[in-house]
Amino acid sequence: MKLGVVQMPVGADKEKNIETAERHIAACAARGADMVVLPEMFCCPLSPKYYAALAEERGGPAWSRMAAAAAGAGVWLVAGSLPERAGENLYNTSFVFDPAGGEAARHRKLHMFDQNLPGAATRESAVFTPGDAVTLFDTPFCRVGLCVCFDLRFPELLLRMALAGAELIIAPAVFALATGAAHWEMLLRLRAVDNQLFVAGVSAARGEKGFRSHAHSMVTDPWGNIIYEAGTEEAVAVVEIDPGEIQTVRDKLPLLPARRPALYAR
Amino acid sequence: MKLGVVQMPVGADKEKNIETAERHIAACAARGADMVVLPEMFCCPLSPKYYAALAEERGGPAWSRMAAAAAGAGVWLVAGSLPERAGENLYNTSFVFDPAGGEAARHRKLHMFDQNLPGAATRESAVFTPGDAVTLFDTPFCRVGLCVCFDLRFPELLLRMALAGAELIIAPAVFALATGAAHWEMLLRLRAVDNQLFVAGVSAARGEKGFRSHAHSMVTDPWGNIIYEAGTEEAVAVVEIDPGEIQTVRDKLPLLPARRPALYAR
Repeated sequence: MKLGVVQMPVGADKEKNIETAERHIAACAARGADMVVLPEMFCCPLSPKYYAALAEERGGPAWSRMAAAAAGAGVWLVAGSLPERAGENLYNTSFVFDPAGGEAARHRKLHMFDQNLPGAATRESAVFTPGDAVTLFDTPFCRVGLCVCFDLRFPELLLRMALAGAELIIAPAVFALATGAAHWEMLLRLRAVDNQLFVAGVSAARGEKGFRSHAHSMVTDPWGNIIYEAGTEEAVAVVEIDPGEIQTVRDKLPLLPARRPALYAR
Repeated sequence: MKLGVVQMPVGADKEKNIETAERHIAACAARGADMVVLPEMFCCPLSPKYYAALAEERGGPAWSRMAAAAAGAGVWLVAGSLPERAGENLYNTSFVFDPAGGEAARHRKLHMFDQNLPGAATRESAVFTPGDAVTLFDTPFCRVGLCVCFDLRFPELLLRMALAGAELIIAPAVFALATGAAHWEMLLRLRAVDNQLFVAGVSAARGEKGFRSHAHSMVTDPWGNIIYEAGTEEAVAVVEIDPGEIQTVRDKLPLLPARRPALYAR
């Protein structure tokens, strides 16, 4: 399975962001990608002052263009995330399209990034409503679990996905500089190790202006090896992963069957 | 709180191992340690051919000498682990003594290290019976959760301890070379990050003969920093940890209150 990882720049011009995504999706397909992943908030800057203005409903302009891009390129597309408007609410939502352009899944970010880090506090819950469902979808290559960014912080969510058969966890995820430097690599690697599957975290490139992302989009394998890591600039890669490695690792070091859930319950 | 970390060599001579432990416990106390931690199987080589022969019942010679060492030094002592005989069964058990020499806790390893790594397969369950209880104990410094080695692999166990108020997870733990190089550091660091507490993993030194341990005993803080790391040789350190840092980190990045347990249940 070939995974296109699109670490693209994101600016305030929604149309320009969509065009950037379209170009990279087509380029990944030309290089043989089966699935392409865009960053969290791929068509909207990561800042509360843009979310409401650039939000759209399911079926809106970015949704439609991404559906068409998937179909045009003949790839699975995890269209990062965007601010989704649904009635009174905004969600941080990742839409997934199949190679025919149909919506295959939709993940509304479950965990709001409410924190008080010095100089970088955020209160995502003041703008967005959290989703209420765990998201898995099936492809001809493997079963995929979908997180958005802060969702990755919660080991129980990923374990739930692994127990439900996920072989690849995809997380459009833009980490900040401080938490990125401290935790990003460990998270991507140990979540893969604990759950014995592949993990792909796809970030926006680090811009000169606005939110400064850690970037370093990364794909890890079930042994915790880094099989791809971007730098901080715009970068597009097609990374080969072999879901067959999962069973090899699980046979060598059986972790999931060794759990003792009755002891973990409070 | 000052934590004595004893990365001692372990050989086939049980008496000699006990003497080594006694000497290091006294040395840690002389350097101001409040609590001392010994490695997994501190008085018995990590090999099935020794376990039954060197096993003892609760109250046996190693137990008694460690109780006396704790009292003599006036420290809390997490006496690594030893093969404990109880009726027909053997357990991989960590006994904890208070500064008066009383048994403060007892953790029987919960997860058996049954695996098939090339050239290093083990079947711990063929020799040992797993314990059936999560172990926490209180000290004047903080509440402590106790794991033995492979127990560390199970994020749900550590989360259970964090939710029960643990501020320090102690794990006597001897990792092998392959899994140690691949996973030891990540495990010690990310378990601390996910649960926002301190973690101390204490290994035997890497011997010339017999089981070759990864060693690298390590203490990590709630942000995932490594505050102490040993090399592969015999090493004894007294490491200061400040449980007050836990609340600071939890205030900056609240993870435990952001969990959504109803979604993680299958």
